[in-house]
Amino acid sequence: MSKAAGDISEIVIRRMPVYHRYLKELIESGVERISSKDLSQITGYSASQIRQDLNNFGGFGQQGYGYNTVDLKAQIEKILGIDKKYNTIVIGAGRLGQAIARYQGFRNSGFNVISLFDIKDGISDISGIKVRQMKDLENYIKEENVEVAIITVPREACEEVAKRVVEAGVKGIWNFAPFDLKGPEGVVIENIRLNDSLLTLSYFMKNL
Amino acid sequence: MSKAAGDISEIVIRRMPVYHRYLKELIESGVERISSKDLSQITGYSASQIRQDLNNFGGFGQQGYGYNTVDLKAQIEKILGIDKKYNTIVIGAGRLGQAIARYQGFRNSGFNVISLFDIKDGISDISGIKVRQMKDLENYIKEENVEVAIITVPREACEEVAKRVVEAGVKGIWNFAPFDLKGPEGVVIENIRLNDSLLTLSYFMKNL
Repeated sequence: MSKAAGDISEIVIRRMPVYHRYLKELIESGVERISSKDLSQITGYSASQIRQDLNNFGGFGQQGYGYNTVDLKAQIEKILGIDKKYNTIVIGAGRLGQAIARYQGFRNSGFNVISLFDIKDGISDISGIKVRQMKDLENYIKEENVEVAIITVPREACEEVAKRVVEAGVKGIWNFAPFDLKGPEGVVIENIRLNDSLLTLSYFMKNL
Repeated sequence: MSKAAGDISEIVIRRMPVYHRYLKELIESGVERISSKDLSQITGYSASQIRQDLNNFGGFGQQGYGYNTVDLKAQIEKILGIDKKYNTIVIGAGRLGQAIARYQGFRNSGFNVISLFDIKDGISDISGIKVRQMKDLENYIKEENVEVAIITVPREACEEVAKRVVEAGVKGIWNFAPFDLKGPEGVVIENIRLNDSLLTLSYFMKNL
């Protein structure tokens, strides 16, 4: 029943981490099974939407029983590829870059930060992770088989940095610079749009 | 022609910051006017979608001329309420909280960080911004007329912190803890879901 990734729309994919997050909470609260109706109340998506989303990957529920929370969480982790580990670097060792490099949650999702890079020389290690020089970027990516780069450099620098890491072999970019990076075929880019979110907050506050 | 905020769907609102971001770039590149067709190519939204979005707020374009970039950017800023200023605090003075407190981009969007708060005592000022004690939170919010709180505390603490700031009078929350905060009527909450984004990146990398 499961389909190839290309057949599933991005909007469905983006709901998977949401299900995963709520399932984690349910399991922590001792809930062993849940109906799509109850899952609907928690997530805000309709029950039929939830069933349809999960059917894309083969189902996992049982008529009249609902979903086993532990099983469903494990299935979603498989779908999302959490079991995979990626050698990851952070480019830009400012406060944001440092915060990300140290955050255990990203490590738990399979993204192992093995080095930071910065244009400034002589920045000390961040929780035991070395801060390297930009001139060594390409060699390091190739030698250490780095697959993911987290970009926290200023906007002016982000396109050039992205180009360099992609040419060196990086397959995924998590971009925090306020600029929509677009990648070539075969490279996955997630742009985090903090400013967009803040402007949305501003809009809703103005219209309270 | 302009409608009340309640009539406009959130999905339309969330495209406004995107238009704003691209218009800023166009203006910096010296582009004075742009058609919805060209705007479509840059943003990836269809031309009719763009026209329809902007018509929600009264139009701003001219048949056969397109949009004046500077005018449209100014109009969107008005729609988004960027002209307004909000007294803002950051709760959680870890690296992420510090990065946010110092970031000029947020200040430019009207969010003035006037203090940080942390459960730990004795953290030194962050770029001249004082780090205060959690016991003084409610009094400070009331005395300084704080309207927005940025929450960067761990997940376990975020619900309690949100409850406290809302009861003290905060009207908007920008939440970085990996937990979907839900606010009471009259309080705007923007949840930043960094982990969800990372899991999405993981999915697409797995299926490359």
